[in-house]
Amino acid sequence: MTAAPPEKIALIAGEGGLPLEIARRLRDRGSSVVVITLRDDPETFGPLSEAVVRLRFPSLGRVVREAKRHGAKSLIMAGNIPKRTIYLLPALFDPLTRSVLSERRRDDHALLGTIVAAFEREGIDVLPYWQILPEFLAPEGRLGTRAPTEAERQDVRYGADILRVTLPCSFGQAIVVADLAVVAIEAMEGTDAMIERCGALSGRGVLVKMMRTDQDARYDLPTVGPGTIESMRRAGLTCLAVEAGRTLVLEPERTLAQADACGIAVWGIQACPSS
Amino acid sequence: MTAAPPEKIALIAGEGGLPLEIARRLRDRGSSVVVITLRDDPETFGPLSEAVVRLRFPSLGRVVREAKRHGAKSLIMAGNIPKRTIYLLPALFDPLTRSVLSERRRDDHALLGTIVAAFEREGIDVLPYWQILPEFLAPEGRLGTRAPTEAERQDVRYGADILRVTLPCSFGQAIVVADLAVVAIEAMEGTDAMIERCGALSGRGVLVKMMRTDQDARYDLPTVGPGTIESMRRAGLTCLAVEAGRTLVLEPERTLAQADACGIAVWGIQACPSS
Repeated sequence: MTAAPPEKIALIAGEGGLPLEIARRLRDRGSSVVVITLRDDPETFGPLSEAVVRLRFPSLGRVVREAKRHGAKSLIMAGNIPKRTIYLLPALFDPLTRSVLSERRRDDHALLGTIVAAFEREGIDVLPYWQILPEFLAPEGRLGTRAPTEAERQDVRYGADILRVTLPCSFGQAIVVADLAVVAIEAMEGTDAMIERCGALSGRGVLVKMMRTDQDARYDLPTVGPGTIESMRRAGLTCLAVEAGRTLVLEPERTLAQADACGIAVWGIQACPSS
Repeated sequence: MTAAPPEKIALIAGEGGLPLEIARRLRDRGSSVVVITLRDDPETFGPLSEAVVRLRFPSLGRVVREAKRHGAKSLIMAGNIPKRTIYLLPALFDPLTRSVLSERRRDDHALLGTIVAAFEREGIDVLPYWQILPEFLAPEGRLGTRAPTEAERQDVRYGADILRVTLPCSFGQAIVVADLAVVAIEAMEGTDAMIERCGALSGRGVLVKMMRTDQDARYDLPTVGPGTIESMRRAGLTCLAVEAGRTLVLEPERTLAQADACGIAVWGIQACPSS
């Protein structure tokens, strides 16, 4: 009698450390992974997966065909993939890509929802990646060794109150506050670039990161990791506040050890009640 | 019979082109100007003023004494002076500076109001500088040659709607929008640095600049000028919208000629109704 064949899952692997973590976790739990990726380092996934398909001319139809060819009935998307990928010429010859682009709303988050719906119409289940990594979800309260000071807590509350105003406007998922003044707020530049300019502007402060009301809690959670802590250290920021239960802490042990080493308090705050 | 002696006015000259414009204007209307400044180029004011006092160890008490010594009963403040100036050690030995610092609220705009009140307690009238430059206030509607396109108007309306949400939070006095998405929003970095990062992020869009609800329309109006247009040109932004009647356009002829030359539409929009 042979064991049941392992469940096959396709992993669309974008940039960053998250797809590797997910591939490793899927392998550890006995799933068989087919990695579909645009990355320049597809070989990284070799030891973790049954097959790696590197797409040079990506399209949604191609992803569906590759997933099915390898027998995967479900799919996980993780890591950054530049939005412009979907506008590349070869993709535009793909009927599935074109069906997605015919949708009216095209901002990042609406686009993601439309892509998920298109995969599901083709019979491929899209799995929320955080189910694979439940212990990576930030809990409430103190995460590292140091608790935030009362002054840091005040700045965090001030920042969170402002994010609750900006998030429904579809921007402002991260903010830096020092002494109850807004040092910087994120729009299209991304969190790391936003943190970076705080080094010159204030050289101190707290970072508050929350989920946009138009992000999908299944596929599109805010993420922090060692890179976030390193950017904060360089900018002189002393406290990181994230939404409990709605933020992924990548490589949590390393992230928190790094935060401890440079005296950064990491704090899980209650999720935004408005969303 | 001799002519009445010219009215004496002290001008606290911070950085930028505005103090020079004001000194020139005061001279042209026959006032006698005493410039009090921290600037490295005090000689620039020589031809425009009766006296130039360069402060190396600034304090509010010193400003009052210099103004009175030169017979000035009124004072105009213009140009940027770093907030940290008031925390310099010599200033802290000054009773007037210490009385200002004992006030509870210390954000930039509250600080300015407290300083104005302190000068007035000492018998020095503080004059709103835009009264000296009434024709520099942006009118409503098209300011340069090109009118904004319908797409630009939509982005301006979207940006203005967001500023009306952020301004009461005491940040976000300028925003760049492209295709109804927020490219960047200003906090402590200042408008030019905010515009600059849009070059890499979108390379296009509209800039909307409005007055914070905690800015004092007498002393603290938003200001645009040739530098704003040049930053926009480099970043690829195509339309500048400012609040009519509440924005100073520095060197208006040069600013608008420069905007015309690079096809940037300049547009005066209605002031924020909430303030």
